[in-house]
Amino acid sequence: MFTEYQHFIAVDWGTSHLRAYLCLAEANKPLTVLEQVNNVGVKKVLTDFQTTLMDSIAPWAKRFGHLPILMIGQIGSSIGWKETQYLHCPISPTDVISAGTQFNCQGHQITIFPGLRCQLHNHLHDSMRGEEFHLLGWLAMAPQHLVGKHLVCLPGTHTKWVLIEDGKVVLFKTALTGELYDLLSSNSVLIQEKVSDLEFDFDAFIQGADFSLSSATDNFAHGLFSVRSKQLFEGFTTKQAHAYLSGILIGCDVRAAKHATEWALSQLSSIAIIGPPHLNQCFAKALNLCNVKTTLWNVTDATLAGFNVVYQQGIPLIHE
Amino acid sequence: MFTEYQHFIAVDWGTSHLRAYLCLAEANKPLTVLEQVNNVGVKKVLTDFQTTLMDSIAPWAKRFGHLPILMIGQIGSSIGWKETQYLHCPISPTDVISAGTQFNCQGHQITIFPGLRCQLHNHLHDSMRGEEFHLLGWLAMAPQHLVGKHLVCLPGTHTKWVLIEDGKVVLFKTALTGELYDLLSSNSVLIQEKVSDLEFDFDAFIQGADFSLSSATDNFAHGLFSVRSKQLFEGFTTKQAHAYLSGILIGCDVRAAKHATEWALSQLSSIAIIGPPHLNQCFAKALNLCNVKTTLWNVTDATLAGFNVVYQQGIPLIHE
Repeated sequence: MFTEYQHFIAVDWGTSHLRAYLCLAEANKPLTVLEQVNNVGVKKVLTDFQTTLMDSIAPWAKRFGHLPILMIGQIGSSIGWKETQYLHCPISPTDVISAGTQFNCQGHQITIFPGLRCQLHNHLHDSMRGEEFHLLGWLAMAPQHLVGKHLVCLPGTHTKWVLIEDGKVVLFKTALTGELYDLLSSNSVLIQEKVSDLEFDFDAFIQGADFSLSSATDNFAHGLFSVRSKQLFEGFTTKQAHAYLSGILIGCDVRAAKHATEWALSQLSSIAIIGPPHLNQCFAKALNLCNVKTTLWNVTDATLAGFNVVYQQGIPLIHE
Repeated sequence: MFTEYQHFIAVDWGTSHLRAYLCLAEANKPLTVLEQVNNVGVKKVLTDFQTTLMDSIAPWAKRFGHLPILMIGQIGSSIGWKETQYLHCPISPTDVISAGTQFNCQGHQITIFPGLRCQLHNHLHDSMRGEEFHLLGWLAMAPQHLVGKHLVCLPGTHTKWVLIEDGKVVLFKTALTGELYDLLSSNSVLIQEKVSDLEFDFDAFIQGADFSLSSATDNFAHGLFSVRSKQLFEGFTTKQAHAYLSGILIGCDVRAAKHATEWALSQLSSIAIIGPPHLNQCFAKALNLCNVKTTLWNVTDATLAGFNVVYQQGIPLIHE
């Protein structure tokens, strides 16, 4: 075990957000997060990746000098900083630990971990970056899921629906639900104003989710415009329109999961949802409309548990 | 008949584009377009509507003085300049002519014509602004459609599928297909670079359309990400990705039209498509994949024919 560093920096750098954690790691103990810094995601970086990262961690570098930096997410993709590989499924999430890409940046040892890829029943390929670490942490937090078949839903900018069997990721499917919500609520004709997330209207959400879920064919293409027509003709407020749009999109996503041939949703006793609290609640409500039980897990807890597994196994040494 | 003005300005001002035409109108003759100016759509106006319009028509105002200005489209909506009413379906498109909202702007007499609204089988409401004029012109150009039942597809920023019976608009459905394409091809993780419209790859388009159309349930939510995965793992170029995305979205739209309970697509001998030439071609290809015959009509011709019907009936006098 490699225990030279008591402190390290864990970075989850996705499409929309950078989340950096100053971590204190100790053998056989859970990780302690001392501080957290947020910054912009890979698609939103205005300068360059190095500047964005170094600006984010500057106070920590000042206090602790050169720290190992472990990174996951889209930062390792073709639109990121250094492209790392995609490991083929079926695979155990622990297999990513030894397959990182390492380099030195201003004296800091950076490791970017690889993503996963799989092929679906319709022969299309799919890929993930970051979620394999969330799964790694979740399996460490709840090791009873290392046995048997489990469906995991990871909501976020992109939803990932992941089939796990005996601790291995068998395959997974991606939906652009979160990204579509951001685009349609900010830049489309459907909604004219922003509202605070605190004002979420769950009744309107359920109305939207139910509309998508009860569609015999495909309500999405010819139903999405109802976000606007309900404001024009049914007195919907902007707040209701936001939640209704969210319901339509999440309903569509859950409906596709319900009909996926890769798993039989009705035969699973429960689905684990690993995401931010608000999205966990939304997906749980939509799945409950389909009579599917859910267990909810906080994605930050899972991510940090994932980084701790890496620490406990030993942070890989830099190869230069 | 009101024939004082030989010249007038016709403006189709939608969500994405302003198209202004300097027209020469003569009794019982087709309209002559002397000049055309394009500017930004309602959602993209940076200053204000009055400035945008006056800047656009300034050279014409200089030559001809005060001209009547006839406007259609989103400019008359709640996100536009002056809100005009929505007339209830079923209705003949000619009924909009006498229901405009008139005002004076820097000496120009401006008339904004109303839109249409309807209620669908699922009790949702729908609305259009501008397309009622395209239909008015199309029925004038092809009066054989004044008898019997016809389905008309008007592609654009929003697709409108319109059921016409004996010259009346019975109901219609809106899809955000064009707006989704713009958002997803410019601002999403799916596509990183722009390509010229001239380079459209019809093979990739057909692949995307076929993917959506052959879906037994709902390929959209869990299929859209293939625009990216095909670039990552199947060697798709950016050019192919653009056309494939267009195919997925138009396929989804056509698939919804195929399953709509408001009409029976298979029982219609042919569908009229009224749009810009490139979109006409795309929708025709997708409909042909469903064994539906199409006739193609240029939307600019239809729009101008619509404005000519108004001229021939007499431009309404200003009420002040």
